[in-house]
Amino acid sequence: MPKISYKGDKMPSSPIRKLVPYSDAAKQRGIKVYHLNIGQPDIETPQEAIDALRHKETKVLEYSHSAGILSFRKKLTEYYNRFQIHVNPDEIIVTCGGSEGLLFAFNSCLDPDDEVIIPEPFYANYNGFAVMSGVKVNPIVSTIDTGFALPSIEQFEKAITPKTKAIMICNPNNPTGYLYSKEELETLAKIVKQYDLFLFSDEVYREFAYDGAEVYSVMQLKDIEQNVVLLDSVSKRYSACGARIGMFITKNKEVYNTAMKFAQARLSPPSFGQFFAEAAIDTPQSYFDDVLKEYVARRNVVTEAINKMPNCFCPVPKGAFYAVAQLPIDDSDTFCRWLLEDFNCNGETVMLAPATGFYSDKGKGKNEVRISYCLNVNDMKASMKCLEEALRIYPGRLQ
Amino acid sequence: MPKISYKGDKMPSSPIRKLVPYSDAAKQRGIKVYHLNIGQPDIETPQEAIDALRHKETKVLEYSHSAGILSFRKKLTEYYNRFQIHVNPDEIIVTCGGSEGLLFAFNSCLDPDDEVIIPEPFYANYNGFAVMSGVKVNPIVSTIDTGFALPSIEQFEKAITPKTKAIMICNPNNPTGYLYSKEELETLAKIVKQYDLFLFSDEVYREFAYDGAEVYSVMQLKDIEQNVVLLDSVSKRYSACGARIGMFITKNKEVYNTAMKFAQARLSPPSFGQFFAEAAIDTPQSYFDDVLKEYVARRNVVTEAINKMPNCFCPVPKGAFYAVAQLPIDDSDTFCRWLLEDFNCNGETVMLAPATGFYSDKGKGKNEVRISYCLNVNDMKASMKCLEEALRIYPGRLQ
Repeated sequence: MPKISYKGDKMPSSPIRKLVPYSDAAKQRGIKVYHLNIGQPDIETPQEAIDALRHKETKVLEYSHSAGILSFRKKLTEYYNRFQIHVNPDEIIVTCGGSEGLLFAFNSCLDPDDEVIIPEPFYANYNGFAVMSGVKVNPIVSTIDTGFALPSIEQFEKAITPKTKAIMICNPNNPTGYLYSKEELETLAKIVKQYDLFLFSDEVYREFAYDGAEVYSVMQLKDIEQNVVLLDSVSKRYSACGARIGMFITKNKEVYNTAMKFAQARLSPPSFGQFFAEAAIDTPQSYFDDVLKEYVARRNVVTEAINKMPNCFCPVPKGAFYAVAQLPIDDSDTFCRWLLEDFNCNGETVMLAPATGFYSDKGKGKNEVRISYCLNVNDMKASMKCLEEALRIYPGRLQ
Repeated sequence: MPKISYKGDKMPSSPIRKLVPYSDAAKQRGIKVYHLNIGQPDIETPQEAIDALRHKETKVLEYSHSAGILSFRKKLTEYYNRFQIHVNPDEIIVTCGGSEGLLFAFNSCLDPDDEVIIPEPFYANYNGFAVMSGVKVNPIVSTIDTGFALPSIEQFEKAITPKTKAIMICNPNNPTGYLYSKEELETLAKIVKQYDLFLFSDEVYREFAYDGAEVYSVMQLKDIEQNVVLLDSVSKRYSACGARIGMFITKNKEVYNTAMKFAQARLSPPSFGQFFAEAAIDTPQSYFDDVLKEYVARRNVVTEAINKMPNCFCPVPKGAFYAVAQLPIDDSDTFCRWLLEDFNCNGETVMLAPATGFYSDKGKGKNEVRISYCLNVNDMKASMKCLEEALRIYPGRLQ
């Protein structure tokens, strides 16, 4: 039997997936599990957009343009205008989810063994795309005591090597919920300019900014237009993760044309998802207002509860729907497994994501968990009760 | 401005796409262009399957399982049973088109710089996926005088190096329309077994087999179960290229689990396409009977017409909807461009794919073109008239 590839060996398994057998077993024992481990929103998908797909006449379901349906790309420029992101249809490639866009960015801009600097903790799947394209991730640490703010210029400069070709950020951030300020992004722009790097920005949580905070996009940064690739997706925006529609956007023609070669090789992005996503751009603001109100309420339940628990700390995130909390525990992997295997509070428990999976360095994130606040307020409250009780009796509790 | 990647430089441009500006220009001059250059069928998509998608209730368009929706994978096993392909749902990964499956196969089974042997002429985009995964394509030539039959054992053995990890075929073949016989596949199995290689088989044209010919799948081969990866897609089967639903199938658990890591990194295949494709499995046989009758008629128009033209030869393909024809021309790239730029026959011309794009070696395919018989019989007849007249007056005609 022939051997599998070394890339296959190196591909990381999802840090959350390992816990699934334990949550399944807990459910089989009749325990109710609150899933705060996932990025799948429970919010309803805009039904007007689903209906638009329903009413679409399709005689022959053809390949679309490799860059995506033109009317959709035109409509997207309107959408981006609302956020002071000014792009043309021929600066957009519609991708199969944000994931494919990231792969296009790595493949188009970096050679194998080139390095991309990413502030950590970061979205674990970035590692997978790095393995696929042979790119090396060079992480620099952001810490919970600043709420996971952008690392300092010095940290970036220390990390830059002759192999460094790009910096990648996620804003608002998964897993921390941190929203980079305009000033932080301008600092980043200076580094990018000075060292002539690419800047990849995953902005799929753009709509999820709270407390009146403004999301500033890398596409608004001056002087580094040619360095920037924006990665986007409709998954979270319209609670439409299954649509698999993302966007790769750049004003750099050479990068665009290169990414188009990758896009042409896979022929086209999904047509049904594009029909849906084009219609979804007309989703009224009231939809987002309701969603944001709901998320703020959920976030407040989580952060207020955790910050009241002894020796616990949870910065109040301004974006996305995640928070990273510091807990007085020996090891977050052990703790999260224990929650599912050995604990219940009146027949209920909670599933969390150990933060270790979001760091590259072994040893980091051992006293941190990521909480996805994707359940309704009552369930979030019940989960926090579970967590509080669990921390009280967890055998691996520190002091 | 930072430099793009060398992968980007190496990515091949589509051999057909280069001609698009010339066909656009011809249309602007008022010339009717018969597009025999593309793989986009004009056949209507089964409306029952489109309707099933329409009637599907979707409150939250969630990520599906990374391997695809379970009910769809179960239904797929029924579909494959009809073709004596016996697989389980946990041997199937639903992919974003056949393209993604191929990338999973290359990434899971081959290291960068490993070699895959592919009989040429072959589907040009295979080269793109090879570049993405760093794999080297080692082509061996099949020739028009055998109708593009499988190369001999000796040719395979001569091509095998210590770096060879896999053989890849497309059956029925794009671009040649050749359908490999059971005996040819058994020969292949022996080589695969003897040299312990992977065998990747792209069988997306399974339904398109003519004159009572039977399609034999690599999944039916004995003794090499652990070596085989089947790549499939609904694009051509249901004239649903825009659905972007493909299948990666293997009985090798290690390969499957490895491919699943790549599948999990990109989260899930498109949901709408899966809803459609699951329903499409119930498409009645009468749909395919009609489609096949139509394609046979088209094929006969093409092959009969070309084989009557002086010094032209077109083997009669038993599968897919392509044929490669040998023409008395100096250079197929020049000829195909000339057809669009300098020729018309009563205001009409024909767009063909130069076969050069389907060969790795420069110099091969210069007197061959690929004809996609994807237009109705009357248009196919008119195109053949154009071609005949063109060959009569083409300045680069040989003798």
